Amino acid sequence: MAAGARVTAGIVATGSELLAGRVRDANGPWIAERLGRLGIDVTEIVLVGDRPEEMAAALRSLAGLDLVVTSGGLGPTADDLTAAVVADLTGRPLELDEHMEKVVGDIIARFADRLNWDADALAEANRKQAMVPRGATAIPPVGTAPGLAVPPGDDYRPTVLVLPGPPREVQGMWDDAVASAPVQALLERTEPFAETHLRLFGVPESEIAATLRAVGEHTDLAPLEIVTCLRDFALEVDLRRAPGDEAAAVAHDAVVAEIDARHGAAVFSRTGETIDEILFDLLSGHTIATAESCTGGLLAGRLTEPAGASAHVQGGIVSYSNEAKANLLGVPQQVLDTHGAVSTQAVQAMARGAIERFGVDVAVAISGIAGPGGGTEEKPVGYVCFCVRTADGTEIVRDPVLPGARGDVRERSVVLAMHLVRRILTPRDQAVS
Amino acid sequence: MAAGARVTAGIVATGSELLAGRVRDANGPWIAERLGRLGIDVTEIVLVGDRPEEMAAALRSLAGLDLVVTSGGLGPTADDLTAAVVADLTGRPLELDEHMEKVVGDIIARFADRLNWDADALAEANRKQAMVPRGATAIPPVGTAPGLAVPPGDDYRPTVLVLPGPPREVQGMWDDAVASAPVQALLERTEPFAETHLRLFGVPESEIAATLRAVGEHTDLAPLEIVTCLRDFALEVDLRRAPGDEAAAVAHDAVVAEIDARHGAAVFSRTGETIDEILFDLLSGHTIATAESCTGGLLAGRLTEPAGASAHVQGGIVSYSNEAKANLLGVPQQVLDTHGAVSTQAVQAMARGAIERFGVDVAVAISGIAGPGGGTEEKPVGYVCFCVRTADGTEIVRDPVLPGARGDVRERSVVLAMHLVRRILTPRDQAVS
Repeated sequence: MAAGARVTAGIVATGSELLAGRVRDANGPWIAERLGRLGIDVTEIVLVGDRPEEMAAALRSLAGLDLVVTSGGLGPTADDLTAAVVADLTGRPLELDEHMEKVVGDIIARFADRLNWDADALAEANRKQAMVPRGATAIPPVGTAPGLAVPPGDDYRPTVLVLPGPPREVQGMWDDAVASAPVQALLERTEPFAETHLRLFGVPESEIAATLRAVGEHTDLAPLEIVTCLRDFALEVDLRRAPGDEAAAVAHDAVVAEIDARHGAAVFSRTGETIDEILFDLLSGHTIATAESCTGGLLAGRLTEPAGASAHVQGGIVSYSNEAKANLLGVPQQVLDTHGAVSTQAVQAMARGAIERFGVDVAVAISGIAGPGGGTEEKPVGYVCFCVRTADGTEIVRDPVLPGARGDVRERSVVLAMHLVRRILTPRDQAVS
Repeated sequence: MAAGARVTAGIVATGSELLAGRVRDANGPWIAERLGRLGIDVTEIVLVGDRPEEMAAALRSLAGLDLVVTSGGLGPTADDLTAAVVADLTGRPLELDEHMEKVVGDIIARFADRLNWDADALAEANRKQAMVPRGATAIPPVGTAPGLAVPPGDDYRPTVLVLPGPPREVQGMWDDAVASAPVQALLERTEPFAETHLRLFGVPESEIAATLRAVGEHTDLAPLEIVTCLRDFALEVDLRRAPGDEAAAVAHDAVVAEIDARHGAAVFSRTGETIDEILFDLLSGHTIATAESCTGGLLAGRLTEPAGASAHVQGGIVSYSNEAKANLLGVPQQVLDTHGAVSTQAVQAMARGAIERFGVDVAVAISGIAGPGGGTEEKPVGYVCFCVRTADGTEIVRDPVLPGARGDVRERSVVLAMHLVRRILTPRDQAVS
């Protein structure tokens, strides 16, 4: 990386549905993360409507950057005008790419019946999609629309990478887009950042802020990019630095050392792995079943998300009613009567029942008061009981009061349960937390 | 509404975590939807980092609009500089609001211990938060930071509404923000749109596009704002028009009539209700249980999402393994051997089992091949069997091949199952589809 010369980028996502607030833009964050990995500094993400003048205004507002990536506004319909706008801005007239005309023609033909178009409309759409700004590289389509990598123009400094709207297509053509000559020319000026991705569970963001302030008192943290955020109830601390920057390396080591000293027990990943990935690996060779009340099946749903989950997940019982807890999991009526359906005794019985019913070696049970109603002074909304049990009788039992509204309590319970399973499956001497 | 005078708005969300791609901005879409309801035309959403010069550049790029709403960059820490940037742009010097100083002081005092700050830092943060641009209205805090409604400046045309970052705080202070004098002054120039929200299930976007083209051949659709999008596997068609615009009303009626004529059977809502809301109402007086394989508990999780779900949801069984299908749901081994676990016969047996086990009057069973592995020529990835059954023996059985990757197949299956439950619970003569 040339000293000090950061390659900067902006992202423009187009689509009036984004401005109606009905749909959240998925492409901006995805592209931003990918650019970050390449060592490119994203300074702005702009969402605009479908009108060409809005797209042009957004592209002009990013004229000081090195790279602009657009998503959406490509495609066969009349209001998809991104290619024309970019051609105009960069002063590169649109020319027919005959190879791409054939590629697109074959693809559109397959969609033709469904689109209910006549032959004339079809030929026009075909030609429109195969028009490429002079000097630009067409990127083969994943859906119906090719992408474009457009070098800077005489009056427009940024390289422009034009991608389609559907996230699947953006992600599917990303590697080809990065490999295109105009993007490679930019990447020669940069170098991927060195990144550390710490993941902590059970530490509030304010404590990490205090830790960082403490490090900052004796070490200059300015050369280090630190992003902390809460995602999926885990605290993510991402440290990013230019390779070869000595001061950044010193800052990095000081931050990691202080986090380890203060919060080491809460660190569950040092490589950015999610709890799902970690648990999937830990469950190898085991079988697991769930017994859920307030989470209503969300934990089982989450455990079965990865392909291959059937190797360890046997199933689960959603015992939302007391009858289901008694009949399907064998929770003794006396436990329900004496301690209630939300009690450590009830989840212990539920976990035992799940182990028996499914014949598994690990079971996890959850019962709680997700709210908004049903809370009492003794057991308020957010009070959730957990039991993780193995077939040999080892148990972890917890009964915290979790903050947040109904949805938060349910989702947080799922994540907490996953971390408890992680703990029971992590051999003591290898534990990261 | 003054003829032709549309009130326009832009939204700026700040936070470097948004540009690192780790977090999706939740405020932009939420604010955009709310502004739309007020009759304000959102033309751009911009996400920028935490640096004041980035925020200032974004605000300047929106200088041609009537309203700019910011989120984030408010708060007690040093890098939260939105108020200062807005004060500078509008030429309105920051002045201490003594009432707000007291309000904020009381709030910060409660957080002080957690923030680990000394008395000096505390007093400074307190004062900083209570600084209000001259002539602006402070909006009482929901969290720690007050919002600001700032009238236009001599050299800056838009009214600026400054809101905090956390979505809960944005949503919590929205009504007060709208009621503030600077925003009310803008709203005098507009009028909420008349809106129609059609929801269709089972119609591809391309068919609606063809229908709209057909209407456009005999009716001018330009005065009508039409946003179509796929959300939660349903097609949303939102029609928005200025009240009193005759041409828009004609266009609206023509579009609704043609959609009814071509796709009437697929329309499940005319008021924007979700399938979840519709199903919750239909389930009143009924009890329901689920038997899930490939969806792994997601359907039960979704049915238990609304508060009050325990009135009708008894529970569910996630029979991920064949043993669980046989042991817990009583699916005959002969069915599994002859037809396989993914078969209409298996889901019929699963639904019967769920009705018996849970003693409910409606059960829904799902078994399919979510992929990416496990597909065969006869039963490819995406092949999913559904059975909805009532205690009186009425059944709906379906076995489509659903498109998409594993996650898509699972989520689409959940939604399709919900629509099948809706059908079995909707009396024939009242059916909207």
